[in-house]
Amino acid sequence: MSEGEFHSKVVTFACEVYWGDCDPAGIIFYPTYFRWMDAACWALLGSVGYDAKRMRSEHIAMPLVSADCQFLYPAQQGDRCVVRSSIARFGGKSFVVAHEVQREDGMPLAKGSETRVWGRFDAGPGSRMRGQAIPEDLKSLFRAS
Amino acid sequence: MSEGEFHSKVVTFACEVYWGDCDPAGIIFYPTYFRWMDAACWALLGSVGYDAKRMRSEHIAMPLVSADCQFLYPAQQGDRCVVRSSIARFGGKSFVVAHEVQREDGMPLAKGSETRVWGRFDAGPGSRMRGQAIPEDLKSLFRAS
Amino acid sequence: MSEGEFHSKVVTFACEVYWGDCDPAGIIFYPTYFRWMDAACWALLGSVGYDAKRMRSEHIAMPLVSADCQFLYPAQQGDRCVVRSSIARFGGKSFVVAHEVQREDGMPLAKGSETRVWGRFDAGPGSRMRGQAIPEDLKSLFRAS
Amino acid sequence: MSEGEFHSKVVTFACEVYWGDCDPAGIIFYPTYFRWMDAACWALLGSVGYDAKRMRSEHIAMPLVSADCQFLYPAQQGDRCVVRSSIARFGGKSFVVAHEVQREDGMPLAKGSETRVWGRFDAGPGSRMRGQAIPEDLKSLFRAS
Repeated sequence: MSEGEFHSKVVTFACEVYWGDCDPAGIIFYPTYFRWMDAACWALLGSVGYDAKRMRSEHIAMPLVSADCQFLYPAQQGDRCVVRSSIARFGGKSFVVAHEVQREDGMPLAKGSETRVWGRFDAGPGSRMRGQAIPEDLKSLFRAS
Repeated sequence: MSEGEFHSKVVTFACEVYWGDCDPAGIIFYPTYFRWMDAACWALLGSVGYDAKRMRSEHIAMPLVSADCQFLYPAQQGDRCVVRSSIARFGGKSFVVAHEVQREDGMPLAKGSETRVWGRFDAGPGSRMRGQAIPEDLKSLFRAS
Repeated sequence: MSEGEFHSKVVTFACEVYWGDCDPAGIIFYPTYFRWMDAACWALLGSVGYDAKRMRSEHIAMPLVSADCQFLYPAQQGDRCVVRSSIARFGGKSFVVAHEVQREDGMPLAKGSETRVWGRFDAGPGSRMRGQAIPEDLKSLFRAS
Repeated sequence: MSEGEFHSKVVTFACEVYWGDCDPAGIIFYPTYFRWMDAACWALLGSVGYDAKRMRSEHIAMPLVSADCQFLYPAQQGDRCVVRSSIARFGGKSFVVAHEVQREDGMPLAKGSETRVWGRFDAGPGSRMRGQAIPEDLKSLFRAS
């Protein structure tokens, strides 16, 4: 395995395509996938004990460096989906999350990634945010067992 | 019971407050409640057999006449919620859906309603839409048992 | 004029219906109007010197008590619109903003209102927020000249 | 110039960061950039005569193949921005749109691209959509003069 790769656990986030997520072509409006990927990333963090409440109280932030998505098949209103999220790579102060969106029958709908910084606000939201070296014991929480 | 009132079944729609649903004050951005109410209305219809697929194939529309909401308590990221939806009233071609949003611990968060027309597109989305008299057998599907 | 009514200036907020604001029926998804009304309320405040930067630095909040909207005519992608916003009423610690949404040719599209509290965070977003008596000199800034 | 590159006109789309576009960290929620890029792509098409009305009447669609964005600097509520959009490349049935988001003072905020298919619905939204060879005279409309 090349340096930087990571054998990650995979966490599942359930979602559904609603009427208001769709556009006049009758299919999902694509920024919806990025909303899902963001929520799925929070669920991935939550699965290892870093839920919204803890992130708030410890002043942790995870701002985006970049995001991308390939759209494989058009989703429609009523489609029940899961986002399968995992750590693709840990850098020094950043990490890459890989996301696969599938319809409940297994049909792949989209595939994307987010690159984020692990950061901390000096004094809560609105104050200065600095990138943090990601601790080894945090990384190990995401390791596939 | 006065004319127009309706003893409706209550259908539950599960949702959660995500990071991107919140504003810089750290609480839910209020149009999110209307997105939930819309999705909950579709779930109410779906519970009596009118799911998205059937609505599409039968060219049924349910455009809004009005919507309102009272905000009772500020929801935060991570709050798991339910919307409890029911028919408040049937008119000739219109109906009123009442929605109550509660946090999973029972805390009331918001309370609103939507007034909608029961309509049909002449030839699918984009074509002319006309209000339809709501059939009695459709109404009876929503009656509390 | 009954107590509480207010002869307000009217401030105009420009917006447009985008592809992603529309639903599979090819018309505006209704929570979009509430997003516009929120942005228009901020523009109304900005027009009297309370722009986003000042609101932040003075720890001012204006949480919602309720919101409602009547939908008069279906807007479509490409429609250029304005929201005309004014103070409908000042209470002790709350105020009501009236919004009228018009298409650029004058066609009325929607009409709504927001009831908000004038509040202040003890120590910035996330800290405790308390309603404030609305100062008379603040009210007078909105008076029609 | 290598095959496939294209010397494109650049079209400007104006937008602003609203309260509801921001997250609890007080900065823009990143899917907002993709909403802007979508709207900016429509504006690019509109600038050469393919506005929403014409797209609808000619049953043209431009579904996404992929999208990506790099986030360069955190935007805040009240930031007035422009998206500068151009054709990066024409393929046979697909095209790539490049987008640069700048704050009004010139600060680069984000940089992304969308890959789209040029398609046509057999019979309006909801019917089968097929990719179309992009006509040379359509391409020439985007050529920088």
